[in-house]
Amino acid sequence: MNEESTLKLNGKLWIELDGVKLIGPGRVELLERIQLCNSIRQAALQMKMSYRQAWQLVDQMNANLRSPVVLLHRGGKGGGHAELTDYGLEVIEKFNLFFEKFHSFIAENTPLIDL
Amino acid sequence: MNEESTLKLNGKLWIELDGVKLIGPGRVELLERIQLCNSIRQAALQMKMSYRQAWQLVDQMNANLRSPVVLLHRGGKGGGHAELTDYGLEVIEKFNLFFEKFHSFIAENTPLIDL
Repeated sequence: MNEESTLKLNGKLWIELDGVKLIGPGRVELLERIQLCNSIRQAALQMKMSYRQAWQLVDQMNANLRSPVVLLHRGGKGGGHAELTDYGLEVIEKFNLFFEKFHSFIAENTPLIDL
Repeated sequence: MNEESTLKLNGKLWIELDGVKLIGPGRVELLERIQLCNSIRQAALQMKMSYRQAWQLVDQMNANLRSPVVLLHRGGKGGGHAELTDYGLEVIEKFNLFFEKFHSFIAENTPLIDL
């Protein structure tokens, strides 16, 4: 083993419904970007994701959570826009809280590897 | 959302070296099975994995950790056998400890989802 290399703990965290991943860091980033630019298309572009894929992720959350996370306002100037609901903001906040706790878990346990 | 469905936290945990995953639940299960049957081939079969794949996973751990996890004794009756080193046993024990803590993290935080 390289002298400068050290073993690190790492992992992934998500929220699932009936065994299907529903909320993870990628989806939360998508929601955050939709919140910032009020556009699924722009958020998808920023994440190098197709519009179709971004729309499907949003639609999956809207359909499976107890309340929609994004409202779509079609038509009007600029061709409609997307808006986070209060519940969507709560989803972001709650997931980021778990994600921070998970990062703390990783950071606290990595020094204990000692292998 | 289905009345009987509930959101659950879930995730993955692994130990990596220079950003490359080196020890995870699958590899630890492989080591545990090698320990039980003293054979990489048998362990691979049990895990529905090719011998080549199992050998590569073992070889990657042997080559990158500070000490080998499995010793291969070639030839002899039955065509040689594989044996966990003390260090290999320590790797299993340590990872399982982290994995238990991670499961506790998931179990403690799941009731807090409340979304």
